[in-house]
Amino acid sequence: MTDSKNLIETIYNPNSELWSAPKDFKRHQFLLEAGQIETQLYYILDGAVRVFFVAEEQEHTIRLGYTNNVINALPSFLSGKPSTLYIQALKKTTVKIAQKEDLLRLKDATNQNLIMWSKMLEDVFLQQFDREKDLLTSSPEERYNRVLKRSPQLFQEIPAKYIADYLRMTPETLSRLKKS
Amino acid sequence: MTDSKNLIETIYNPNSELWSAPKDFKRHQFLLEAGQIETQLYYILDGAVRVFFVAEEQEHTIRLGYTNNVINALPSFLSGKPSTLYIQALKKTTVKIAQKEDLLRLKDATNQNLIMWSKMLEDVFLQQFDREKDLLTSSPEERYNRVLKRSPQLFQEIPAKYIADYLRMTPETLSRLKKS
Repeated sequence: MTDSKNLIETIYNPNSELWSAPKDFKRHQFLLEAGQIETQLYYILDGAVRVFFVAEEQEHTIRLGYTNNVINALPSFLSGKPSTLYIQALKKTTVKIAQKEDLLRLKDATNQNLIMWSKMLEDVFLQQFDREKDLLTSSPEERYNRVLKRSPQLFQEIPAKYIADYLRMTPETLSRLKKS
Repeated sequence: MTDSKNLIETIYNPNSELWSAPKDFKRHQFLLEAGQIETQLYYILDGAVRVFFVAEEQEHTIRLGYTNNVINALPSFLSGKPSTLYIQALKKTTVKIAQKEDLLRLKDATNQNLIMWSKMLEDVFLQQFDREKDLLTSSPEERYNRVLKRSPQLFQEIPAKYIADYLRMTPETLSRLKKS
């Protein structure tokens, strides 16, 4: 791979040399399980995944990914520690995979790429801050509206059960809000 | 300021040229109010602050800072958009102030500083992920223990009322957990 390539263009182009051949996951198959160290990035060509952790015997869905999203278990990817997060296909899902070492080499190759990497981390932080505000929003309707505004496509791509979990409401409440 | 200086050493040294003369804030005075754009970073020489936002007519304390912490309203600082966050002194507080333009110039000065800036953003993201897990933890005792392990000093430095708000429990529950 030519290391002078633009970091963001390379990541968001599934045909760039960063990405592997397509790989299929069956519905409910895991891309990553808790305890493993995340060393990959996934480009979703087709399908949908959720990122969740288990605490107090409960699953908590904290991220959702669908076609054309790039996703991974970022805390483990950045820290190098075992993941507390699972990534699971919600339907038959085809991804391409990038390796951490290739991504880091690309990032470190030019000053411009280092600056882009910072910009991506800033964006991830700002998304995470939005999520913190979602979690502190007590009205289910307000939570639904915040996420609908931010990610309208999510409601087309992800089974309602997992959206309800992400929004911390029952599927019945979600169904009622979608109709209103 | 010499721009070849090490970013992290300069930020965490309150006597570096990055920082202003000390400035005092009275108890309950605001360092920043919602609607303003955050263009500063604060080094707390002495005292304590909280960062909060108001939603659904309720205040939500999302960060706490005390002596030797560096803090600001980071979402607005990074995005350049008006802050949804307030920063308020919880007691008489003395800070030094750094300006965004000086910080950005220092960050861009060397490759090493760009890499350090990325590292700081990664750390901030990992802290924010811990906070997301806190918020999804339903047991007050478990939330208390997670934060006690992460930031024991917090319980010496911050009035209990604001710690309780940060932990989303009543002051009575916090007091019971501290004794047990």
